[in-house]
Amino acid sequence: MSYVFETEMMVRDYECDLQGIVNNAVYQNYLEHARHEFLQATGIDFAQFCADGIDAVVTRIEMDYKLPLRPRDIFIVKLGMRKQGRLRFVFDQAIVRKADGKRVLEAQVFAVLTRDGRPIAPTLFDEVFVSKGWKF
Amino acid sequence: MSYVFETEMMVRDYECDLQGIVNNAVYQNYLEHARHEFLQATGIDFAQFCADGIDAVVTRIEMDYKLPLRPRDIFIVKLGMRKQGRLRFVFDQAIVRKADGKRVLEAQVFAVLTRDGRPIAPTLFDEVFVSKGWKF
Amino acid sequence: MSYVFETEMMVRDYECDLQGIVNNAVYQNYLEHARHEFLQATGIDFAQFCADGIDAVVTRIEMDYKLPLRPRDIFIVKLGMRKQGRLRFVFDQAIVRKADGKRVLEAQVFAVLTRDGRPIAPTLFDEVFVSKGWKF
Amino acid sequence: MSYVFETEMMVRDYECDLQGIVNNAVYQNYLEHARHEFLQATGIDFAQFCADGIDAVVTRIEMDYKLPLRPRDIFIVKLGMRKQGRLRFVFDQAIVRKADGKRVLEAQVFAVLTRDGRPIAPTLFDEVFVSKGWKF
Repeated sequence: MSYVFETEMMVRDYECDLQGIVNNAVYQNYLEHARHEFLQATGIDFAQFCADGIDAVVTRIEMDYKLPLRPRDIFIVKLGMRKQGRLRFVFDQAIVRKADGKRVLEAQVFAVLTRDGRPIAPTLFDEVFVSKGWKF
Repeated sequence: MSYVFETEMMVRDYECDLQGIVNNAVYQNYLEHARHEFLQATGIDFAQFCADGIDAVVTRIEMDYKLPLRPRDIFIVKLGMRKQGRLRFVFDQAIVRKADGKRVLEAQVFAVLTRDGRPIAPTLFDEVFVSKGWKF
Repeated sequence: MSYVFETEMMVRDYECDLQGIVNNAVYQNYLEHARHEFLQATGIDFAQFCADGIDAVVTRIEMDYKLPLRPRDIFIVKLGMRKQGRLRFVFDQAIVRKADGKRVLEAQVFAVLTRDGRPIAPTLFDEVFVSKGWKF
Repeated sequence: MSYVFETEMMVRDYECDLQGIVNNAVYQNYLEHARHEFLQATGIDFAQFCADGIDAVVTRIEMDYKLPLRPRDIFIVKLGMRKQGRLRFVFDQAIVRKADGKRVLEAQVFAVLTRDGRPIAPTLFDEVFVSKGWKF
């Protein structure tokens, strides 16, 4: 897996549940936040996209839970992005505990771009990826 | 306090935190949901309000925590509403544990209506309250 | 897919995000709540399990997003459960919009039981399933 | 108001609701996180406290909403702490938007320490405050 972006976060107490560990659903918040940070970092003007009726829609998520995060754990969310077929693109994401580098979670997030509700080819990303020297 | 509306809910496990009780912030979700249920029940057409540029804005919240809710507790959120001055209105809310009727939380939520960002008198509510025989 | 349990819920406004639809992570809350409701309904004494050091751990989740839920939508979470291999069991879950019966989300949630942190065979469920006439 | 601690955070998209602004309840998450960061920073050993049966319990919260935070806004949570009477202590908290220093929210959070469920005087904090040169 080749990751092109990462961001660091810390577990907040309110994200933990009865079992004293981060609730399973909260990892999806972490993953979403990292994707939005990544898209922001690419310099893509999403406000303009939205104004043009373009939207990014998640169609499928797979998550493997390896190890639970606990209060105040610092962790890194890593992210790669690739095309799948003509329309779909995939975010490969991993969460790694900073203290020991252990893998906490691995995820694949499948998405499409839509214009006015209809899927369009994600060619918008091509230019960014070429300019950064990333494969897409 | 005279309440004019109530709604029943149950604590979901994911709403509880490390201490095994409902997290303090989650009560605000419960209170907000009860207010929206109430407004829906009054028959006020909020979609139309929004289309007319009218918005309801919370300006202040006071909450007294009496007793913690625990997983699977069933509780009632009670609600009263009154004017305060010319522009402000107040929701009086209480959360009561169903099993024993004990008071879990008391809250006062202060709000104003705005049209295009400017406060307007909440006369919109007068008709509803009169028709229901409630004092406002 | 054969479902053995279902529970009805309604979208609360605070569960919706900027796009005016239920945030992707919130569906995991719905699914978790339905699983806990199901386990409660089976009559399995989980408090006793915990006291015996037995825990249920989610190891993998797959979710297919078909259609977004919107504010005040009423929906049904359906649930089936089956063994996979000697240790793993799977919850098959679907979310269906009540108004038109349309499929909102399909999920497979993989889990194991652990005693003192080590996986154990989920034979605890056998008796319940037999008594209910469900296949497991 | 004299603040003795501050911490910087950024709004994440999933914390925003239908209106495109941070949901009112989420500010309580921010405030709680800042309090826990502060207590951590004082060097007080809360794990030891818990082991000794000592707990901190919020009894009342007052929040004044001045200005909404929006996606990606960076903000500072400021915190002061003082005694009120023999048993109660108060956190004075403010949230300030970093870009322009504007006040977003002001809060007073009232709490007590309990040992085995009974309120105790918060003398535990005296030493820390003296050592830091803060008034308490």
